[in-house]
Amino acid sequence: MKRVMLNKDVLHGNQVQANHNRMLFVQHSLLTINVMSSPGSGKTTFLERTIQCLKAQWRMAVIEGDLATSLDAERIASCGVEVIQINTHGACHLTSSMISSVLPTFDLSELDLVVIENVGNLVCPADFDLGEHLRVTLLSTPEGTDKIVKYPSVFQSSDAVILNKVDLLPYVPFDLKQFHQSLKEINPNVATFLVSALKGEGMDQWIHWLQNQQAKIKKANGRELT
Amino acid sequence: MKRVMLNKDVLHGNQVQANHNRMLFVQHSLLTINVMSSPGSGKTTFLERTIQCLKAQWRMAVIEGDLATSLDAERIASCGVEVIQINTHGACHLTSSMISSVLPTFDLSELDLVVIENVGNLVCPADFDLGEHLRVTLLSTPEGTDKIVKYPSVFQSSDAVILNKVDLLPYVPFDLKQFHQSLKEINPNVATFLVSALKGEGMDQWIHWLQNQQAKIKKANGRELT
Repeated sequence: MKRVMLNKDVLHGNQVQANHNRMLFVQHSLLTINVMSSPGSGKTTFLERTIQCLKAQWRMAVIEGDLATSLDAERIASCGVEVIQINTHGACHLTSSMISSVLPTFDLSELDLVVIENVGNLVCPADFDLGEHLRVTLLSTPEGTDKIVKYPSVFQSSDAVILNKVDLLPYVPFDLKQFHQSLKEINPNVATFLVSALKGEGMDQWIHWLQNQQAKIKKANGRELT
Repeated sequence: MKRVMLNKDVLHGNQVQANHNRMLFVQHSLLTINVMSSPGSGKTTFLERTIQCLKAQWRMAVIEGDLATSLDAERIASCGVEVIQINTHGACHLTSSMISSVLPTFDLSELDLVVIENVGNLVCPADFDLGEHLRVTLLSTPEGTDKIVKYPSVFQSSDAVILNKVDLLPYVPFDLKQFHQSLKEINPNVATFLVSALKGEGMDQWIHWLQNQQAKIKKANGRELT
């Protein structure tokens, strides 16, 4: 019983800070996405491609969450955007407080998009709101179709699901029909995109969707300000 | 500070029960392995192959840990061995108490091997001793070489690391030399096996190693009993 109450406290504390973060993002008309997946689904490669596609139009910053190393942050920095690394040292997910502690390093009024790359984990990140506008979950084809029903929480709470590594479809037992069916049952309104971040295939639709989401936020804020 | 202390309590409580479990396994000269990996690395397919290889010689039981569904337990049951499913309903790892609660369903004196398939997660399972003799971690080639340094704890604490999906090596950017180098730096004595569980390649060496581990346990118990 004690443990359940503590868990509620932790989640409540996280939610309060997440709401603060969200307010800050909204004030700056700043689209923020929380990118989640298993280790090795290709989050960093997918973000590198996304940055390449949007760099000419948008000012972006990336918050990198990892247990250890700054390998991903170095990769992102070499794309020419602002990046900060959070090392969780054992914690299997980011929290809203970790995010708020690094936000002062950015000038939010100068940015159009903040990307948070969560720790590679399909379980706990789903429970922790970071204040993001959108949750984006990657699944890669070698992981198999059954991950959607086996790890339902992260897929249920996602605004977009990216199926990555579609270039490997001829070599792995992945059932595309089942992928769409499982998502339809668990989260009928989720946006889905089939990409190969490594080869650069299928990024256009994703970029177009992201631009639309950003336009919606700017428009909503415009209405509020008038 | 409070959170750190609680964490210590949780880990201490887990360790006490893990020691009990281990004593029980030793009493029955029963080899027990804790199999860990990211979601989708191929743990269940690898176990299906292992069971096929050993079925004629060994009596085996499998404990399946998953957030939701009994999909993996059904696959393992169809191999003709005893299996029990633990659904963690949100918890991102198994604990020693979860294991002890299901052990009475097996007649331990009738078994040679108990396999515990942990929840797909490269982070928290590493912190929770279940009482196993051996920790076996799978990494699959599409996940990339950098996972060893990015998720060090699980690889440091492993007795064996299985590189799975080697049939995909021609199609993915995986650096085999770096794989061996990273493991050597982080865990120089770990046993490594390169397999394709899907295609059945490379299983012989793993099976031979497992048989040796079981022989050691029987021999140690024989000495104690005389």
